[in-house]
Amino acid sequence: MSATRVQFISPRTLRLLSPGRSALFLPGCGGPHRGGGVPGFRSLTSPPLSSSSSPGRALSSLSTTRRALPKTKMSDNGTMSRGKVLTIDNMNPTVKKVEYAVRGPIVQRAVELEKELSEGMKKPFAEVIRANIGDAQAMGQQPITFFRQVLALCSYPDLLSDSTFPEDAKSRACRILNSCGGNSMGAYSASQGIGSVRQDVARFIERRDGGVPCNPDNIYLTTGASDGIVTMLKLLVCGEGATRTGVMISIPQYPLYSAALADLSAVQINYYLNEEKCWSLDISELQRALDEARLHCNPRALCIINPGNPTGQVQSRECIEDVIRFAAKERLFLMADEIMFTPNIRHCVPYSQVYQDNVYAEGCQFHSFKKVLFEMGPEYSETVELASFHSTSKCYMGECGFRGGYMEIINMDDDVKDQLTKLFSVRLCSPVPGQALMDLVERTTTLSALAEKAKLTEQVLNTVEGIRCNPVQGAMYSFPCITIPERAIQEAKKLGQQPDMFYCMKMLEETGICLVPGSGFGQREGTYHFRMTILPPKDKLKILLNNVKEFHQRFTQQYS
Amino acid sequence: MSATRVQFISPRTLRLLSPGRSALFLPGCGGPHRGGGVPGFRSLTSPPLSSSSSPGRALSSLSTTRRALPKTKMSDNGTMSRGKVLTIDNMNPTVKKVEYAVRGPIVQRAVELEKELSEGMKKPFAEVIRANIGDAQAMGQQPITFFRQVLALCSYPDLLSDSTFPEDAKSRACRILNSCGGNSMGAYSASQGIGSVRQDVARFIERRDGGVPCNPDNIYLTTGASDGIVTMLKLLVCGEGATRTGVMISIPQYPLYSAALADLSAVQINYYLNEEKCWSLDISELQRALDEARLHCNPRALCIINPGNPTGQVQSRECIEDVIRFAAKERLFLMADEIMFTPNIRHCVPYSQVYQDNVYAEGCQFHSFKKVLFEMGPEYSETVELASFHSTSKCYMGECGFRGGYMEIINMDDDVKDQLTKLFSVRLCSPVPGQALMDLVERTTTLSALAEKAKLTEQVLNTVEGIRCNPVQGAMYSFPCITIPERAIQEAKKLGQQPDMFYCMKMLEETGICLVPGSGFGQREGTYHFRMTILPPKDKLKILLNNVKEFHQRFTQQYS
Repeated sequence: MSATRVQFISPRTLRLLSPGRSALFLPGCGGPHRGGGVPGFRSLTSPPLSSSSSPGRALSSLSTTRRALPKTKMSDNGTMSRGKVLTIDNMNPTVKKVEYAVRGPIVQRAVELEKELSEGMKKPFAEVIRANIGDAQAMGQQPITFFRQVLALCSYPDLLSDSTFPEDAKSRACRILNSCGGNSMGAYSASQGIGSVRQDVARFIERRDGGVPCNPDNIYLTTGASDGIVTMLKLLVCGEGATRTGVMISIPQYPLYSAALADLSAVQINYYLNEEKCWSLDISELQRALDEARLHCNPRALCIINPGNPTGQVQSRECIEDVIRFAAKERLFLMADEIMFTPNIRHCVPYSQVYQDNVYAEGCQFHSFKKVLFEMGPEYSETVELASFHSTSKCYMGECGFRGGYMEIINMDDDVKDQLTKLFSVRLCSPVPGQALMDLVERTTTLSALAEKAKLTEQVLNTVEGIRCNPVQGAMYSFPCITIPERAIQEAKKLGQQPDMFYCMKMLEETGICLVPGSGFGQREGTYHFRMTILPPKDKLKILLNNVKEFHQRFTQQYS
Repeated sequence: MSATRVQFISPRTLRLLSPGRSALFLPGCGGPHRGGGVPGFRSLTSPPLSSSSSPGRALSSLSTTRRALPKTKMSDNGTMSRGKVLTIDNMNPTVKKVEYAVRGPIVQRAVELEKELSEGMKKPFAEVIRANIGDAQAMGQQPITFFRQVLALCSYPDLLSDSTFPEDAKSRACRILNSCGGNSMGAYSASQGIGSVRQDVARFIERRDGGVPCNPDNIYLTTGASDGIVTMLKLLVCGEGATRTGVMISIPQYPLYSAALADLSAVQINYYLNEEKCWSLDISELQRALDEARLHCNPRALCIINPGNPTGQVQSRECIEDVIRFAAKERLFLMADEIMFTPNIRHCVPYSQVYQDNVYAEGCQFHSFKKVLFEMGPEYSETVELASFHSTSKCYMGECGFRGGYMEIINMDDDVKDQLTKLFSVRLCSPVPGQALMDLVERTTTLSALAEKAKLTEQVLNTVEGIRCNPVQGAMYSFPCITIPERAIQEAKKLGQQPDMFYCMKMLEETGICLVPGSGFGQREGTYHFRMTILPPKDKLKILLNNVKEFHQRFTQQYS
């Protein structure tokens, strides 16, 4: 794997990482106990980080080579206390390998900065702007009234007699409650999800796909899309050594994939998206990655993220056909992460289509893998195994906090499907409010504001020398390529950091803008990126983009 | 492991299992496609179950030895279709080992029976009564108005100006919304959970524990308690062969534990609860189980379920002290599943205390592991590592569908805690509505109805010859021991079933009562049990108990 990655870094170590902070070489940097002030609560046995440790060592000490803890240690009150049963050295090693950039050290530092600002500390900025995560409502997007009315009615059915609530919301709430045990969202649902919700989701999919039939029995309601993706990957993993399951993921990828694969000890097979061609997918690159991987593992699945995350592209229909043929030929289980799909204007058209006659013109209409698969005829539609994922977080709903999602499976072996159902049953059911929201996915709306912001982002960033930004076609993310001067790269290396982590941390400290370094998603060796959302309100986004621009220019000047 | 278990059985095979059904040897029992009617949707390549297969074979065919599927097969339209990429033979073998009785074949058959009843089919009963799962609201328990008002206000904040909502609900909703990103439940929360909710949960724990301090930084809000338990177990697993992590669990246990351990390929170490002493826990039995396990694995954690599930006992304070000393001496990480704790009358007293001066008298007051740990002095309170779990499903709230829960960790190594936080961050956050509900755990209420039903269950069942039922002390379950005649045991064996599965399936068919066989939780070899909830409304519970009584007498007569 040549994709670089960012380490998960502890809050304590974070203090060592943040550039330009004088705490870097302070002795006793184990620091105060987190959330401290409760005596007797923190262990007395874990030694503080050595005061002589360099930042580089502090970073590497988070990886697998860690000093051994003493088995017993004299505690403050003079009794011999035992060392911990569970230490970083003897914990699950696969957990340590899990990395997750979206909520990594940059975000942790952003939280600290917000706290410092609230405590009146002076900063070169008045507020932290979070453009690191696709969290629409945290960025001020208002929830859709109808959805929330239905949820309120489901939560507190006394409101059904409230004449201020519209009839359509009431009838939708009744339909949902009637399928709940005891007519209450407080009852467990069937493990696979509420029957009527799965029916509605199936109808939504049929409409999205121009009538291709969808069987509700193939729908599993999940706790966010992550849950479905992780469960599906879990089914696929087997073998040891050279026969260990390998899973192909795009680079850049959404780091849930690498985290889940590390957790499952599966082999991550990277294929690179073509940045020069607007992050498109080349079959030759898939073939290269697969052929190389076959030398050391057993590739069994191919994951596609469409529309792209973090890259924001929309795959063409031709490309999807090629991918399906490739999966059939190479006997790969297809996993289509179609979470970013935004069903709005005129059903089933991504919001980028607002600009169809403008800039993006051709080639960026959303096509689902299932629809293309079924239009390719029985040779494919009856054989290629496919799982497709969606959520309430990333479509136009933007209801992240509810953790609703679904997975549709196609052509899955019946016995395997039974095992899948069993896995779902162990967790009893996904949260019912999220299921109720998923039920509402079928309603349509317009989101031209997002399209406008996509355009603005691309335009402003491309005026900056050293930043190159592909069009944002169908998601809420931009993943621009940035040039980092050699001296800054050296400086980052001295600190044991990825250069784009160094860049983003510095941007956060100077501007309060919270982005995610590209190294957390993977990128071609020697290239650097950041991911930013286009979700902040338009006026705030303008300021944000200008600040990014100015920061980049300052940074470049400083290090060249 | 000598604890017997129930197999997870596919819906198709279920038809073969159900006793007394003429479909048992019908040819073509692969049956209609599930949820069928959508042409082109079911694979044409997976062969139906052989028409000559005996039920015994059908059951064993669900375990690891499975016929190989042909790699290619002629499909109906004459094209050569490929075999599945993912089959029961090449899927993740650890998933296949996962078993989960609470939603096993009995429940699947109950769903079928409900459907058949609704289609007008004649049965010896008018409705299926579900006493298999602790799903209070599905059994007619009304949600607590205040909770649902808060949730409705959080879902649809326009209601904050509605004068019919009480002020305390509004102020609680405002407090929760103010801690949400964008003041919306639709935003992701911090991975560990909303700050103000963790503060409120900490206050609840302090009150529960008579003032023992609780640091909100040690609270993790989870997707139901299962999520916390699985995540904690995951941290603990390492090593191979004789050094593989072993985890001690009680028998009977809640099958989430065995399922999670199978999934993690950890070694399950069974210790048996003492049924003769009302399912109490003997340290000598813990020692026996541990010593035997040390010969073949590395025991690292001890799980306690208190109040018991499925057994309903409440551990005494002395017993908890003994367990803590044992864990310290043997260097075990303690996991206390305190989900069944019901904080009601006079704060922190389980509902069984309603009967304190009556039957249960002494020894069944709830004590949390943390409180006892802290009262044992610094030798223990500063060293013993503990994780404690709770949920919105099983306390007096009964809000199962929201999947709210928390985990409190004590004395965890700082570096391990960072890894735990990282694991939570990969899933972004637990569902916010469940977090909001967890916030409300502090409110108190009375549940004397449950206590009454606990008493009724014990009384009626103990009038039946061949049923012995311990007092239900502090949970919503009863786990009576049943005598099954030898002839019935032989009959079950012929069908390849556990005897208590045979018993429960027969009860379901004849009475519509849905229970869970004891074999799904584990029991001493040669003993048989079932788990039933005491949740149905009192009048329904009376009928249920009488039907159980009559069925047991009929069954005993039939097979002796």
